[in-house]
Amino acid sequence: MFDPSELLLYACTDRGVLAGRDLLQAVRQAIAGGATMLQLREKEASSREFFQLGVAVHELTAAHGVPLVINDRVDIAQAIGAEGLHLGQSDLPVAVARRILGPDVFIGVSANTVALAQQALDEGADYIGTGPVFATGSTTDAGAVIGLEALAEVAKGISAPVVGIGGINAENAASILRAGAAGVALIADIFGAADIEAAAAKLRDVLELKK
Amino acid sequence: MFDPSELLLYACTDRGVLAGRDLLQAVRQAIAGGATMLQLREKEASSREFFQLGVAVHELTAAHGVPLVINDRVDIAQAIGAEGLHLGQSDLPVAVARRILGPDVFIGVSANTVALAQQALDEGADYIGTGPVFATGSTTDAGAVIGLEALAEVAKGISAPVVGIGGINAENAASILRAGAAGVALIADIFGAADIEAAAAKLRDVLELKK
Repeated sequence: MFDPSELLLYACTDRGVLAGRDLLQAVRQAIAGGATMLQLREKEASSREFFQLGVAVHELTAAHGVPLVINDRVDIAQAIGAEGLHLGQSDLPVAVARRILGPDVFIGVSANTVALAQQALDEGADYIGTGPVFATGSTTDAGAVIGLEALAEVAKGISAPVVGIGGINAENAASILRAGAAGVALIADIFGAADIEAAAAKLRDVLELKK
Repeated sequence: MFDPSELLLYACTDRGVLAGRDLLQAVRQAIAGGATMLQLREKEASSREFFQLGVAVHELTAAHGVPLVINDRVDIAQAIGAEGLHLGQSDLPVAVARRILGPDVFIGVSANTVALAQQALDEGADYIGTGPVFATGSTTDAGAVIGLEALAEVAKGISAPVVGIGGINAENAASILRAGAAGVALIADIFGAADIEAAAAKLRDVLELKK
Protein backbone atom coordinates (compact mmCIF):
# COMPACT_ATOMS: atom_id res chain seq x y z
CA MET A 1 0.00 0.00 0.00
CA PHE A 2 1.51 3.30 -1.13
CA ASP A 3 1.82 5.92 1.62
CA PRO A 4 2.85 9.34 0.21
CA SER A 5 4.21 10.39 3.63
CA GLU A 6 7.02 7.87 3.06
CA LEU A 7 8.36 10.06 0.25
CA LEU A 8 9.60 12.56 2.88
CA LEU A 9 13.26 11.50 2.88
CA TYR A 10 13.82 9.36 -0.18
CA ALA A 11 17.38 8.02 -0.40
CA CYS A 12 18.55 6.85 -3.85
CA THR A 13 21.65 4.68 -4.11
CA ASP A 14 24.51 5.33 -6.49
CA ARG A 15 27.66 3.21 -6.53
CA GLY A 16 29.59 6.16 -7.91
CA VAL A 17 29.08 8.46 -4.92
CA LEU A 18 29.70 5.53 -2.55
CA ALA A 19 33.19 5.36 -4.06
CA GLY A 20 33.76 1.71 -3.17
CA ARG A 21 32.02 1.69 0.22
CA ASP A 22 29.70 -1.25 0.96
CA LEU A 23 26.20 -0.64 -0.40
CA LEU A 24 24.37 -2.68 2.23
CA GLN A 25 26.18 -0.90 5.03
CA ALA A 26 25.37 2.46 3.40
CA VAL A 27 21.67 1.56 3.17
CA ARG A 28 21.71 0.48 6.82
CA GLN A 29 23.18 3.85 7.78
CA ALA A 30 20.70 5.83 5.68
CA ILE A 31 17.81 4.02 7.32
CA ALA A 32 19.32 4.50 10.79
CA GLY A 33 19.53 8.21 10.01
CA GLY A 34 15.86 8.39 9.10
CA ALA A 35 15.43 7.69 5.38
CA THR A 36 11.75 6.93 4.80
CA MET A 37 12.09 5.34 1.36
CA LEU A 38 14.97 3.69 -0.49
CA GLN A 39 15.58 3.49 -4.22
CA LEU A 40 18.03 0.95 -5.64
CA ARG A 41 19.54 2.17 -8.90
CA GLU A 42 22.00 -0.09 -10.72
CA LYS A 43 22.65 0.98 -14.28
CA GLU A 44 25.86 -1.05 -14.76
CA ALA A 45 25.14 -4.31 -12.93
CA SER A 46 24.18 -7.54 -14.70
CA SER A 47 20.64 -8.76 -14.12
CA ARG A 48 21.98 -11.43 -11.77
CA GLU A 49 23.96 -8.90 -9.73
CA PHE A 50 21.01 -6.48 -9.56
CA PHE A 51 18.76 -9.33 -8.45
CA GLN A 52 21.12 -10.58 -5.76
CA LEU A 53 21.76 -7.07 -4.47
CA GLY A 54 18.03 -6.38 -4.55
CA VAL A 55 17.28 -9.45 -2.44
CA ALA A 56 19.86 -8.39 0.16
CA VAL A 57 18.75 -4.74 0.25
CA HIS A 58 15.09 -5.72 0.42
CA GLU A 59 15.75 -7.94 3.41
CA LEU A 60 17.27 -4.92 5.12
CA THR A 61 14.61 -2.36 4.17
CA ALA A 62 11.75 -4.75 4.96
CA ALA A 63 13.18 -5.39 8.43
CA HIS A 64 12.95 -1.63 9.06
CA GLY A 65 9.58 -1.08 7.38
CA VAL A 66 11.11 1.14 4.68
CA PRO A 67 9.64 0.69 1.18
CA LEU A 68 12.15 -0.37 -1.47
CA VAL A 69 11.83 1.11 -4.96
CA ILE A 70 13.66 -0.44 -7.93
CA ASN A 71 14.89 1.93 -10.62
CA ASP A 72 13.99 1.10 -14.24
CA ARG A 73 13.84 -2.72 -14.12
CA VAL A 74 10.30 -4.04 -13.88
CA ASP A 75 11.58 -7.62 -13.83
CA ILE A 76 13.93 -6.99 -10.89
CA ALA A 77 11.07 -5.35 -8.97
CA GLN A 78 8.95 -8.43 -9.63
CA ALA A 79 11.76 -10.87 -8.90
CA ILE A 80 12.47 -9.48 -5.43
CA GLY A 81 8.93 -8.38 -4.54
CA ALA A 82 9.86 -4.69 -4.21
CA GLU A 83 7.21 -2.30 -2.95
CA GLY A 84 7.83 0.22 -5.73
CA LEU A 85 9.27 0.92 -9.17
CA HIS A 86 10.68 4.19 -10.48
CA LEU A 87 10.64 4.93 -14.21
CA GLY A 88 12.56 7.60 -16.08
CA GLN A 89 11.63 8.84 -19.52
CA SER A 90 14.02 6.32 -21.14
CA ASP A 91 12.57 3.35 -19.24
CA LEU A 92 9.51 1.25 -20.09
CA PRO A 93 6.29 3.23 -20.68
CA VAL A 94 4.27 3.62 -17.48
CA ALA A 95 1.20 1.89 -18.90
CA VAL A 96 3.27 -1.16 -19.87
CA ALA A 97 4.89 -1.38 -16.44
CA ARG A 98 1.50 -1.01 -14.74
CA ARG A 99 0.05 -3.77 -16.89
CA ILE A 100 2.91 -6.12 -15.99
CA LEU A 101 3.02 -5.28 -12.28
CA GLY A 102 -0.68 -5.05 -11.55
CA PRO A 103 -2.04 -2.75 -8.84
CA ASP A 104 0.07 -3.87 -5.87
CA VAL A 105 3.40 -2.22 -6.71
CA PHE A 106 3.51 1.58 -6.59
CA ILE A 107 5.10 3.38 -9.52
CA GLY A 108 6.97 6.67 -9.54
CA VAL A 109 7.79 8.53 -12.73
CA SER A 110 10.27 11.30 -13.50
CA ALA A 111 8.40 14.22 -15.10
CA ASN A 112 9.27 17.91 -15.21
CA THR A 113 6.07 19.43 -16.53
CA VAL A 114 2.43 19.24 -15.50
CA ALA A 115 1.56 17.71 -18.88
CA LEU A 116 4.15 14.90 -18.61
CA ALA A 117 3.23 14.32 -14.98
CA GLN A 118 -0.48 14.13 -15.75
CA GLN A 119 0.19 11.70 -18.59
CA ALA A 120 2.18 9.47 -16.24
CA LEU A 121 -0.65 9.56 -13.70
CA ASP A 122 -3.19 8.72 -16.39
CA GLU A 123 -1.04 5.69 -17.29
CA GLY A 124 -0.91 4.49 -13.70
CA ALA A 125 1.82 6.35 -11.80
CA ASP A 126 1.41 6.91 -8.05
CA TYR A 127 3.94 9.68 -7.51
CA ILE A 128 6.03 12.02 -9.63
CA GLY A 129 9.73 12.83 -9.29
CA THR A 130 10.56 16.32 -10.53
CA GLY A 131 13.97 17.82 -11.09
CA PRO A 132 16.79 18.49 -11.07
CA VAL A 133 15.54 21.33 -8.88
CA PHE A 134 19.10 22.50 -8.20
CA ALA A 135 22.41 21.81 -9.92
CA THR A 136 23.68 18.28 -9.36
CA GLY A 137 26.75 16.23 -10.13
CA SER A 138 25.26 12.83 -9.26
CA THR A 139 23.65 11.60 -12.46
CA THR A 140 24.78 12.11 -16.00
CA ASP A 141 21.25 11.94 -17.40
CA ALA A 142 19.68 14.50 -15.08
CA GLY A 143 19.01 17.21 -17.67
CA ALA A 144 18.77 20.97 -17.20
CA VAL A 145 18.08 22.50 -13.78
CA ILE A 146 14.40 23.46 -13.49
CA GLY A 147 14.32 25.44 -10.24
CA LEU A 148 11.81 25.72 -7.40
CA GLU A 149 9.13 27.48 -9.43
CA ALA A 150 8.89 24.67 -11.98
CA LEU A 151 8.73 22.19 -9.10
CA ALA A 152 5.92 24.19 -7.48
CA GLU A 153 4.06 24.29 -10.78
CA VAL A 154 4.09 20.50 -11.08
CA ALA A 155 3.23 20.00 -7.40
CA LYS A 156 0.26 22.35 -7.65
CA GLY A 157 -0.81 21.17 -11.10
CA ILE A 158 -1.45 17.51 -10.30
CA SER A 159 -3.35 15.66 -7.61
CA ALA A 160 -0.61 13.07 -6.87
CA PRO A 161 2.38 13.60 -4.56
CA VAL A 162 5.56 15.06 -6.01
CA VAL A 163 9.09 14.51 -4.77
CA GLY A 164 11.81 17.00 -5.63
CA ILE A 165 15.18 15.71 -6.79
CA GLY A 166 18.53 17.17 -7.80
CA GLY A 167 21.10 19.09 -5.79
CA ILE A 168 19.07 18.91 -2.57
CA ASN A 169 20.85 19.21 0.78
CA ALA A 170 20.08 20.13 4.39
CA GLU A 171 20.27 23.84 3.55
CA ASN A 172 17.69 23.84 0.74
CA ALA A 173 15.53 20.79 1.63
CA ALA A 174 12.90 22.88 3.42
CA SER A 175 12.36 24.99 0.30
CA ILE A 176 11.34 21.81 -1.57
CA LEU A 177 8.54 21.15 0.91
CA ARG A 178 7.51 24.81 0.83
CA ALA A 179 7.20 24.49 -2.95
CA GLY A 180 4.51 21.88 -2.35
CA ALA A 181 6.50 18.66 -2.65
CA ALA A 182 5.76 15.67 -0.41
CA GLY A 183 9.43 14.96 0.03
CA VAL A 184 13.00 15.15 -1.19
CA ALA A 185 14.93 12.52 -3.14
CA LEU A 186 18.67 12.56 -2.65
CA ILE A 187 21.68 10.69 -3.89
CA ALA A 188 24.88 12.60 -3.19
CA ASP A 189 23.99 14.43 0.01
CA ILE A 190 23.23 11.08 1.68
CA PHE A 191 25.35 8.41 -0.01
CA GLY A 192 28.21 10.74 -0.85
CA ALA A 193 28.50 11.94 2.75
CA ALA A 194 31.41 10.84 4.90
CA ASP A 195 28.90 10.03 7.68
CA ILE A 196 25.81 8.72 5.88
CA GLU A 197 23.74 8.24 9.03
CA ALA A 198 24.48 11.77 10.29
CA ALA A 199 23.70 13.28 6.87
CA ALA A 200 20.35 11.49 6.72
CA ALA A 201 19.54 12.43 10.32
CA LYS A 202 20.26 16.12 9.67
CA LEU A 203 18.00 16.08 6.60
CA ARG A 204 15.25 14.30 8.49
CA ASP A 205 15.38 16.93 11.26
CA VAL A 206 15.09 19.77 8.75
CA LEU A 207 12.18 18.09 6.99
CA GLU A 208 10.28 17.27 10.19
CA LEU A 209 10.50 20.92 11.27
CA LYS A 210 9.00 22.11 7.99
CA LYS A 211 6.30 19.51 7.57
CA MET B 1 3.79 -23.43 -27.68
CA PHE B 2 7.48 -24.35 -27.90
CA ASP B 3 8.45 -26.35 -30.97
CA PRO B 4 12.07 -27.65 -30.76
CA SER B 5 12.24 -27.97 -34.56
CA GLU B 6 12.23 -24.17 -34.69
CA LEU B 7 15.69 -24.14 -33.10
CA LEU B 8 17.14 -25.37 -36.41
CA LEU B 9 18.45 -22.03 -37.66
CA TYR B 10 18.44 -19.64 -34.74
CA ALA B 11 19.57 -16.13 -35.71
CA CYS B 12 20.75 -13.88 -32.85
CA THR B 13 21.04 -10.13 -33.43
CA ASP B 14 24.07 -8.07 -32.55
CA ARG B 15 24.33 -4.38 -33.37
CA GLY B 16 28.10 -4.69 -33.43
CA VAL B 17 28.28 -7.12 -36.35
CA LEU B 18 25.57 -5.16 -38.18
CA ALA B 19 28.01 -2.24 -38.20
CA GLY B 20 25.35 0.42 -38.54
CA ARG B 21 23.01 -1.42 -40.90
CA ASP B 22 19.29 -1.27 -40.07
CA LEU B 23 18.29 -3.98 -37.60
CA LEU B 24 14.74 -4.42 -38.87
CA GLN B 25 15.93 -4.80 -42.43
CA ALA B 26 18.54 -7.33 -41.27
CA VAL B 27 15.91 -9.36 -39.43
CA ARG B 28 13.68 -9.28 -42.52
CA GLN B 29 16.57 -10.63 -44.60
CA ALA B 30 17.43 -13.37 -42.09
CA ILE B 31 13.84 -14.55 -42.09
CA ALA B 32 13.66 -14.41 -45.88
CA GLY B 33 16.78 -16.59 -45.96
CA GLY B 34 15.18 -19.19 -43.71
CA ALA B 35 15.92 -18.36 -40.08
CA THR B 36 13.53 -20.42 -37.95
CA MET B 37 13.94 -18.49 -34.70
CA LEU B 38 15.11 -14.97 -33.87
CA GLN B 39 16.79 -13.73 -30.72
CA LEU B 40 16.92 -10.00 -29.94
CA ARG B 41 19.94 -9.13 -27.83
CA GLU B 42 20.43 -5.51 -26.76
CA LYS B 43 22.99 -5.10 -24.00
CA GLU B 44 23.52 -1.35 -24.47
CA ALA B 45 20.04 -0.03 -25.25
CA SER B 46 17.87 1.75 -22.68
CA SER B 47 14.75 -0.11 -21.57
CA ARG B 48 12.64 2.22 -23.73
CA GLU B 49 14.78 1.59 -26.82
CA PHE B 50 14.79 -2.18 -26.24
CA PHE B 51 11.02 -2.13 -25.82
CA GLN B 52 10.37 -0.07 -28.95
CA LEU B 53 12.75 -2.18 -31.00
CA GLY B 54 11.17 -5.32 -29.58
CA VAL B 55 7.70 -4.20 -30.61
CA ALA B 56 8.87 -3.52 -34.17
CA VAL B 57 10.86 -6.77 -34.48
CA HIS B 58 8.01 -8.79 -33.01
CA GLU B 59 5.59 -7.38 -35.54
CA LEU B 60 7.96 -8.60 -38.25
CA THR B 61 8.67 -12.06 -36.79
CA ALA B 62 5.02 -12.69 -35.94
CA ALA B 63 3.99 -11.86 -39.50
CA HIS B 64 6.32 -14.65 -40.67
CA GLY B 65 5.48 -17.13 -37.92
CA VAL B 66 9.02 -17.02 -36.53
CA PRO B 67 9.26 -17.15 -32.71
CA LEU B 68 10.98 -14.14 -31.12
CA VAL B 69 13.25 -14.72 -28.13
CA ILE B 70 14.36 -11.84 -25.90
CA ASN B 71 17.83 -12.02 -24.41
CA ASP B 72 18.17 -11.45 -20.65
CA ARG B 73 15.28 -9.05 -19.99
CA VAL B 74 12.22 -10.78 -18.55
CA ASP B 75 10.33 -7.47 -18.46
CA ILE B 76 10.95 -6.74 -22.13
CA ALA B 77 9.76 -10.24 -23.03
CA GLN B 78 6.59 -9.61 -21.03
CA ALA B 79 6.12 -6.09 -22.36
CA ILE B 80 6.14 -7.13 -26.01
CA GLY B 81 4.59 -10.58 -25.61
CA ALA B 82 7.65 -12.43 -26.95
CA GLU B 83 7.39 -16.16 -27.48
CA GLY B 84 10.65 -16.89 -25.68
CA LEU B 85 13.35 -15.66 -23.29
CA HIS B 86 17.03 -16.58 -23.28
CA LEU B 87 19.03 -16.43 -20.05
CA GLY B 88 22.78 -16.47 -19.62
CA GLN B 89 24.52 -17.34 -16.38
CA SER B 90 24.71 -13.64 -15.41
CA ASP B 91 20.98 -13.06 -15.99
CA LEU B 92 18.08 -13.72 -13.62
CA PRO B 93 17.92 -17.25 -12.19
CA VAL B 94 15.79 -19.57 -14.34
CA ALA B 95 13.37 -20.38 -11.53
CA VAL B 96 12.73 -16.67 -10.91
CA ALA B 97 12.12 -15.98 -14.60
CA ARG B 98 9.80 -18.98 -14.85
CA ARG B 99 7.83 -17.82 -11.82
CA ILE B 100 7.38 -14.34 -13.34
CA LEU B 101 6.58 -15.50 -16.87
CA GLY B 102 4.35 -18.47 -16.10
CA PRO B 103 4.18 -21.47 -18.43
CA ASP B 104 3.38 -19.73 -21.72
CA VAL B 105 6.79 -18.28 -22.60
CA PHE B 106 9.54 -20.76 -23.45
CA ILE B 107 12.92 -20.26 -21.78
CA GLY B 108 16.36 -21.10 -23.10
CA VAL B 109 19.43 -21.15 -20.90
CA SER B 110 23.14 -21.06 -21.71
CA ALA B 111 24.82 -24.07 -20.08
CA ASN B 112 28.03 -25.87 -21.01
CA THR B 113 27.84 -28.97 -18.84
CA VAL B 114 25.23 -31.67 -18.29
CA ALA B 115 24.99 -30.65 -14.63
CA LEU B 116 24.32 -26.97 -15.36
CA ALA B 117 21.93 -27.90 -18.17
CA GLN B 118 20.00 -30.32 -15.96
CA GLN B 119 19.77 -27.70 -13.22
CA ALA B 120 18.34 -25.20 -15.72
CA LEU B 121 15.79 -27.77 -16.90
CA ASP B 122 14.83 -28.56 -13.31
CA GLU B 123 14.22 -24.83 -12.80
CA GLY B 124 11.99 -24.58 -15.84
CA ALA B 125 14.11 -24.20 -18.98
CA ASP B 126 12.79 -25.56 -22.29
CA TYR B 127 16.01 -25.67 -24.30
CA ILE B 128 19.73 -25.32 -23.66
CA GLY B 129 22.25 -23.24 -25.56
CA THR B 130 25.74 -24.74 -25.43
CA GLY B 131 29.00 -23.17 -26.54
CA PRO B 132 31.06 -21.57 -27.81
CA VAL B 133 31.53 -24.78 -29.81
CA PHE B 134 34.11 -23.10 -32.04
CA ALA B 135 36.18 -19.93 -31.67
CA THR B 136 34.11 -16.77 -32.05
CA GLY B 137 34.67 -13.04 -32.19
CA SER B 138 31.02 -12.02 -31.76
CA THR B 139 30.51 -11.77 -28.01
CA THR B 140 32.94 -10.65 -25.37
CA ASP B 141 31.38 -12.86 -22.67
CA ALA B 142 31.40 -16.12 -24.61
CA GLY B 143 33.99 -17.94 -22.52
CA ALA B 144 36.39 -20.69 -23.55
CA VAL B 145 35.76 -22.83 -26.64
CA ILE B 146 34.25 -26.18 -25.61
CA GLY B 147 34.36 -28.16 -28.89
CA LEU B 148 32.00 -30.67 -30.47
CA GLU B 149 32.57 -33.41 -27.91
CA ALA B 150 31.42 -31.25 -25.01
CA LEU B 151 28.39 -30.23 -27.08
CA ALA B 152 27.60 -33.89 -27.78
CA GLU B 153 27.93 -34.71 -24.10
CA VAL B 154 25.32 -32.10 -23.14
CA ALA B 155 23.03 -33.06 -26.04
CA LYS B 156 23.15 -36.73 -25.06
CA GLY B 157 23.06 -36.08 -21.31
CA ILE B 158 19.73 -34.26 -21.11
CA SER B 159 16.24 -34.89 -22.44
CA ALA B 160 15.65 -31.33 -23.71
CA PRO B 161 16.78 -29.93 -27.06
CA VAL B 162 20.22 -28.34 -27.28
CA VAL B 163 21.31 -25.65 -29.68
CA GLY B 164 25.00 -25.18 -30.45
CA ILE B 165 26.44 -21.67 -30.51
CA GLY B 166 29.79 -20.05 -31.20
CA GLY B 167 31.82 -19.83 -34.39
CA ILE B 168 29.25 -21.75 -36.44
CA ASN B 169 29.14 -21.28 -40.22
CA ALA B 170 27.95 -23.10 -43.33
CA GLU B 171 31.07 -25.28 -43.32
CA ASN B 172 30.73 -26.64 -39.78
CA ALA B 173 26.94 -26.33 -39.16
CA ALA B 174 26.26 -29.94 -40.11
CA SER B 175 28.72 -31.18 -37.47
CA ILE B 176 26.60 -29.46 -34.83
CA LEU B 177 23.55 -31.50 -35.82
CA ARG B 178 25.65 -34.66 -36.00
CA ALA B 179 26.74 -33.99 -32.42
CA GLY B 180 23.11 -34.30 -31.42
CA ALA B 181 22.00 -30.67 -31.34
CA ALA B 182 18.53 -29.63 -32.51
CA GLY B 183 19.93 -26.58 -34.22
CA VAL B 184 22.56 -23.90 -34.57
CA ALA B 185 22.53 -20.41 -33.10
CA LEU B 186 24.49 -17.81 -35.04
CA ILE B 187 25.32 -14.17 -34.77
CA ALA B 188 28.23 -13.23 -37.01
CA ASP B 189 27.76 -15.68 -39.90
CA ILE B 190 24.26 -14.31 -40.46
CA PHE B 191 24.19 -10.68 -39.29
CA GLY B 192 27.83 -10.01 -40.08
CA ALA B 193 27.43 -11.26 -43.67
CA ALA B 194 27.43 -8.79 -46.55
CA ASP B 195 24.32 -10.58 -47.90
CA ILE B 196 22.33 -11.62 -44.83
CA GLU B 197 19.57 -13.38 -46.75
CA ALA B 198 22.03 -15.42 -48.82
CA ALA B 199 24.04 -16.35 -45.72
CA ALA B 200 20.91 -17.57 -43.94
CA ALA B 201 19.72 -19.44 -47.02
CA LYS B 202 23.04 -21.25 -47.39
CA LEU B 203 22.96 -22.31 -43.75
CA ARG B 204 19.37 -23.45 -44.03
CA ASP B 205 20.24 -25.61 -47.04
CA VAL B 206 23.12 -27.26 -45.21
CA LEU B 207 20.96 -27.92 -42.16
CA GLU B 208 18.04 -29.35 -44.14
CA LEU B 209 20.37 -31.82 -45.86
CA LYS B 210 21.68 -33.09 -42.54
CA LYS B 211 18.43 -33.21 -40.62
